[in-house]
Amino acid sequence: MSKFKIAIAGLGRIGKIHLNNLLQIPDITVVAATDPDEDCLSHAKEKGVPFVTHSFQNMLDSTKIDAILICSPTDTHADYVETAAKMGIHLFCEKPLDLSVKRVVEVLEVVKANNVKLMLGFNRRFDKEFRKVKELVKNDAVGQPHLVKITSRDPGAPPIGYIETSGGLFLDMTIHDFDMARFVVDNEITEVYAKGTVLVNPEIGAAGDIDTAVVTMTYTDGSMAVIDNSREAAYGYDQRVEVFGSKGMVQSNNNFHDSHKLYNKTGIHAALPLHFFLERYQEAYKTEIQDFVKALYNGSNMPVNGDDGLKSLKIALAALKSVQEGRPVKIAEIQ
Amino acid sequence: MSKFKIAIAGLGRIGKIHLNNLLQIPDITVVAATDPDEDCLSHAKEKGVPFVTHSFQNMLDSTKIDAILICSPTDTHADYVETAAKMGIHLFCEKPLDLSVKRVVEVLEVVKANNVKLMLGFNRRFDKEFRKVKELVKNDAVGQPHLVKITSRDPGAPPIGYIETSGGLFLDMTIHDFDMARFVVDNEITEVYAKGTVLVNPEIGAAGDIDTAVVTMTYTDGSMAVIDNSREAAYGYDQRVEVFGSKGMVQSNNNFHDSHKLYNKTGIHAALPLHFFLERYQEAYKTEIQDFVKALYNGSNMPVNGDDGLKSLKIALAALKSVQEGRPVKIAEIQ
Amino acid sequence: MSKFKIAIAGLGRIGKIHLNNLLQIPDITVVAATDPDEDCLSHAKEKGVPFVTHSFQNMLDSTKIDAILICSPTDTHADYVETAAKMGIHLFCEKPLDLSVKRVVEVLEVVKANNVKLMLGFNRRFDKEFRKVKELVKNDAVGQPHLVKITSRDPGAPPIGYIETSGGLFLDMTIHDFDMARFVVDNEITEVYAKGTVLVNPEIGAAGDIDTAVVTMTYTDGSMAVIDNSREAAYGYDQRVEVFGSKGMVQSNNNFHDSHKLYNKTGIHAALPLHFFLERYQEAYKTEIQDFVKALYNGSNMPVNGDDGLKSLKIALAALKSVQEGRPVKIAEIQ
Amino acid sequence: MSKFKIAIAGLGRIGKIHLNNLLQIPDITVVAATDPDEDCLSHAKEKGVPFVTHSFQNMLDSTKIDAILICSPTDTHADYVETAAKMGIHLFCEKPLDLSVKRVVEVLEVVKANNVKLMLGFNRRFDKEFRKVKELVKNDAVGQPHLVKITSRDPGAPPIGYIETSGGLFLDMTIHDFDMARFVVDNEITEVYAKGTVLVNPEIGAAGDIDTAVVTMTYTDGSMAVIDNSREAAYGYDQRVEVFGSKGMVQSNNNFHDSHKLYNKTGIHAALPLHFFLERYQEAYKTEIQDFVKALYNGSNMPVNGDDGLKSLKIALAALKSVQEGRPVKIAEIQ
Repeated sequence: MSKFKIAIAGLGRIGKIHLNNLLQIPDITVVAATDPDEDCLSHAKEKGVPFVTHSFQNMLDSTKIDAILICSPTDTHADYVETAAKMGIHLFCEKPLDLSVKRVVEVLEVVKANNVKLMLGFNRRFDKEFRKVKELVKNDAVGQPHLVKITSRDPGAPPIGYIETSGGLFLDMTIHDFDMARFVVDNEITEVYAKGTVLVNPEIGAAGDIDTAVVTMTYTDGSMAVIDNSREAAYGYDQRVEVFGSKGMVQSNNNFHDSHKLYNKTGIHAALPLHFFLERYQEAYKTEIQDFVKALYNGSNMPVNGDDGLKSLKIALAALKSVQEGRPVKIAEIQ
Repeated sequence: MSKFKIAIAGLGRIGKIHLNNLLQIPDITVVAATDPDEDCLSHAKEKGVPFVTHSFQNMLDSTKIDAILICSPTDTHADYVETAAKMGIHLFCEKPLDLSVKRVVEVLEVVKANNVKLMLGFNRRFDKEFRKVKELVKNDAVGQPHLVKITSRDPGAPPIGYIETSGGLFLDMTIHDFDMARFVVDNEITEVYAKGTVLVNPEIGAAGDIDTAVVTMTYTDGSMAVIDNSREAAYGYDQRVEVFGSKGMVQSNNNFHDSHKLYNKTGIHAALPLHFFLERYQEAYKTEIQDFVKALYNGSNMPVNGDDGLKSLKIALAALKSVQEGRPVKIAEIQ
Repeated sequence: MSKFKIAIAGLGRIGKIHLNNLLQIPDITVVAATDPDEDCLSHAKEKGVPFVTHSFQNMLDSTKIDAILICSPTDTHADYVETAAKMGIHLFCEKPLDLSVKRVVEVLEVVKANNVKLMLGFNRRFDKEFRKVKELVKNDAVGQPHLVKITSRDPGAPPIGYIETSGGLFLDMTIHDFDMARFVVDNEITEVYAKGTVLVNPEIGAAGDIDTAVVTMTYTDGSMAVIDNSREAAYGYDQRVEVFGSKGMVQSNNNFHDSHKLYNKTGIHAALPLHFFLERYQEAYKTEIQDFVKALYNGSNMPVNGDDGLKSLKIALAALKSVQEGRPVKIAEIQ
Repeated sequence: MSKFKIAIAGLGRIGKIHLNNLLQIPDITVVAATDPDEDCLSHAKEKGVPFVTHSFQNMLDSTKIDAILICSPTDTHADYVETAAKMGIHLFCEKPLDLSVKRVVEVLEVVKANNVKLMLGFNRRFDKEFRKVKELVKNDAVGQPHLVKITSRDPGAPPIGYIETSGGLFLDMTIHDFDMARFVVDNEITEVYAKGTVLVNPEIGAAGDIDTAVVTMTYTDGSMAVIDNSREAAYGYDQRVEVFGSKGMVQSNNNFHDSHKLYNKTGIHAALPLHFFLERYQEAYKTEIQDFVKALYNGSNMPVNGDDGLKSLKIALAALKSVQEGRPVKIAEIQ
């Protein structure tokens, strides 16, 4: 069997990580890359990517491609996916597919009609900590889940300019937690109550967004999940999950720089959590792409699919509506 | 100065604890005790309490009393407090004063009019773990508080008969957490959204109560608190607090049977949390009564007063209304 | 059965603790106390001890006593034990009985001849942490023990005057660890190699003692123990045990002021260990005296007996010899 | 500057790891590899190594080589290093250079005479846990070091055949801990007392080796170190260091599979340490080779040099002598 030919669209921070991880997987070849930025293309060239171009369409036209990773800005995702799907190319797309439910549904129909595979980039599903929690829940270690608690705090807010176009806290940041709430207990959310506010930086409020939130959610069986978010944790990236059930509880913890404990006159001191997602999820990004490639080779289901993206999007929009209207919102209200 | 003369009404589980702790405080005398149960009175006799009687009124009439501890059933609290207050006797009363806001307000007016001191038995305020959290918050160790997280899970549900008369989860169990939410950041709650359900035992639902809840609350400054409750944690009593703020976060943990770690082929194993409130708050109960006696002697403010009881009651009633009506409820709605 | 009549000799720091703990045990009466210091006697009077005197002999002559606690200075222990034993009085004696093996053997013969019970005050055996380790070892949780590791560090050195008369580090401080090494795996020591030095305070060296030591010991079955000691740990009292065996390992940890964790920009910070033995072993002292009284009532074996004292003394003397002669020393060499 | 040309001798388990790590370093080329095994050579070929051969000499003769990694069996190290050094090739050699002090001294003289660089493969120096401990010690976080404690236990004993040729526990396994004892406080060992025994497997004893040991060492300033070793820890690879000093203590801990904690009726359960050195030191191996390449490029001192190897060898031989003669042995006795 000849090697899978993979292309990559978008060579920003996350695109570069995926490129690097792809290059370490035997049995695939990275055949092409596209990005508007010249330096990014040079980077890909140096890494040995044979064909680079500023144009997505040019890349598709010039090279035989089996699968493509879409790591370009959010507003390109839907179009790129559609275009590539119509050419029979399998897809890995960073979240979200689009901020509009209608558009996402359209795109997923095109994907389905063209019989290509689509994986969404919910990288946390590939983190060993959350995988262990899910595995224990699945193996009945905590019994019937009653409550899922997710803490998700960034070490610092992104630039205001980013916030203005990101779709806001729920669509940009909490969307990972919505996916985690579904993933970790393998259950669907039916209702959301979100309370959000601006406590970190008033400019975030001026930009129409919130920076601190508590989101309570209900699953199909009446069990609950609660997420707490902040755009700025002084001590760094805080990513914890706890699942409480009829037989017990399982918690994952942050990953720390090291395990040292220093005892001195003032107390006992330990290292902080790894700074942010690039550090914390370094291994998860590797596993994510390896699992994408594995699913391509095995013809098996993608570990995260388009429907997962759609469902998290609906929860995020329900949370937004909940904050705006000050009431719990059913997911069924979001169309 | 002659020793303070203290009486105790109600010698059930908690009354016995208070009696025992009182007997270890020098500079006070336990002069009388009342309880409908003969064995309880015998117990007090054996411990050296000189006057015991089945009748609360008889106790007040027969003995010179400076202060009284009310540990009898909830439905006696308001009347006993009123009666004693009118006689100029200082009061320690187990929570709640009453399940009706109107009645509590009445009683507090009597207390005020008679110029006696009243302390409410929110024992957790005297636990070293929560005190440390409060101290650090007060000393600006976490900066401006943004989020308070309280986990409060019992090791097992009380008998259905108890549940039916207890006022339900919020008034019986969560009320401690409502007080903790106020205590730990020294701020007031303005709004509550509560989601409650029956996941532990359907009989609890049949009795009109819930056994699992997530309560989101808003403080006066827009910061938030979230409480999660369960009537049954398979691993025992779970009592944790986390305060997240602009400069950092502080967490308290459970207290465990011991600190051992056993490493073997199957993993690393450690001891469970202390089983329930009697074990976990053993020292807190001592400190609570010592602080009550100290405040009597110093003429200083009671560390928990009637208004604290009233405020937590209102939050509990707002939470109940929130579950019933499926919407956030302002505390100002509760009168 | 009438209440056991207990007397106490020596009302220093540890004597006061025992007195207080005795007073909380029903079914015994503290009938007398002796101490050269007037304030100490007043203290006992206030606590309700009916007969107090400066003279040990006077106490024995004037009162009917079933058992006596010897908490007076070390150089009185042997004589007091002998005198009381000859009168048929049961004994609890703080460690050590004496610093001379010959004298200890003599005293134990008197105790035996008079058929009285003698318990030695190795308080750490009653600490819940070490008890849990012993229980797990006994229950085969770690299999056959291969290695015992004991860390024992004081928060600060005692005054030089004390050091000069204490018998030195091994006889005064490490003797508890020698007993622990025997206790935790229920095995006997046959050989000791000790390396000691002066790193904390040169005055300690000038007084002929050491302040830092590592002691390697061999058990009868060839398994080993290692103790590390320091007179001064900047972070407080460090008391840990680890038992490693064929099936696993168990560790106990220090007890801390509280369980808080503070996360801020500089790291994660936690509370220090409880300061010193009075805080750390507060509960152990209670259990110790309760178990002494229990053994008196049940006529059962004392939980720590004179032979335990003798064996630890021999290990300590072997350690001293090892440091002096720079070689491993067999316990059998110590007579 | 043209890329450094690197060769590798020996493609066993550790050789393959180094090869893989080398291939990810830009600015060097792996030009050749040698191994007696055909499959190993095929492996290197597949990875893109241009020249592979069964003969070490042939490799040196056929290719221009700047530096070579010696990962072949121990008995080839000295000869290979000598041969390559004489050709002006820089060297990375797995420990030990040789089991004879005389031979090591000879080889180091050849290295020096030919002015090539030599790095010894003490991989643990590059582990982030131990580096953090060393950094804190260096920065005076614990003040003057008084005691170093090293726990080093393997998850299982190697085959008896391996043990017979390995030089035994001290030369094969503890040698890493001897190096760590020097590294972590940057001080030299002057005396060793070792107690070793056979508790894991009598066949190890029959092969003339020990499987369990406690080693006490003295530094130049009288401070001490203690190592405990076992060939078989039921719970996996146990690698911990603790440095206790005048201002405090620092501990490193094992690295675990993940951070989960499972609370259920029977206790709290967590994941085991990473199984063995390949897992635990995966990152350390990368850093080690990167630092070797960096030192080549910068012309700076090697982070671990031949003298480090010689010193640890002498400590190991002193430990062996100590066990054999049952007495402390000065390093100066070993020539």
